[in-house]
Amino acid sequence: MDDTLALKFDDKGLITAVVVDDASGEVLMVAWMNDEAVKQTLATRKATFYSRSRKKMWVKGEESGHVQEVKSVRVDCDQDTLVVRVTQTGGACHEGYRSCFYRKVDPHGKLELIAERLVDPKEVYGE
Amino acid sequence: MDDTLALKFDDKGLITAVVVDDASGEVLMVAWMNDEAVKQTLATRKATFYSRSRKKMWVKGEESGHVQEVKSVRVDCDQDTLVVRVTQTGGACHEGYRSCFYRKVDPHGKLELIAERLVDPKEVYGE
Repeated sequence: MDDTLALKFDDKGLITAVVVDDASGEVLMVAWMNDEAVKQTLATRKATFYSRSRKKMWVKGEESGHVQEVKSVRVDCDQDTLVVRVTQTGGACHEGYRSCFYRKVDPHGKLELIAERLVDPKEVYGE
Repeated sequence: MDDTLALKFDDKGLITAVVVDDASGEVLMVAWMNDEAVKQTLATRKATFYSRSRKKMWVKGEESGHVQEVKSVRVDCDQDTLVVRVTQTGGACHEGYRSCFYRKVDPHGKLELIAERLVDPKEVYGE
């Protein structure tokens, strides 16, 4: 087995990171990392991403306090995706839910709410 | 809550799909869907993706027999990522593992094998 990390970043220099709750196994969110964010995540054990909209690095929870303590990082066969298993403080979703995946899609494309809000997002992030 | 599916495809017309084992909650693989693949997945309940390298749609398992029966589909807050929960026949990974995430990354960037091969990929996909 190849035991060297040799990530394949896309044409924007990014890689997909799937964040999973280490205790429950639930997928919490999906975000992007650049090379620097990967290195920082591995070194600090605080999940760190690259925001495509704000065009800058962000440590998850730096504003909300809802940090993600990294328990383990896994890489896929093609080395173009990471699974980051974390201990999540509070909710991962800026909408106030534990997971960003709080809606189910039915076969006809209708959405159904499948989770309860933990917090009012206005209280966490302001208006 | 907005209950209408209005997916945000990227500049290549694709959306990230995280495939999760419905029974164990394990992340099996991450792949891409275009609008047609999403519709086909929802309608047929067989996980269907868009291959960026082969530039065409593919039904997971059409070659290997390792099909993914779709149990549920979830969408994230931004509607730019799906979590597809499936019943996986055989392994999801073309390297012969159950999950594509069969290696752990240590803090120094070394990879450690954390899973056993289910099958020899040569037997499934040929040389």
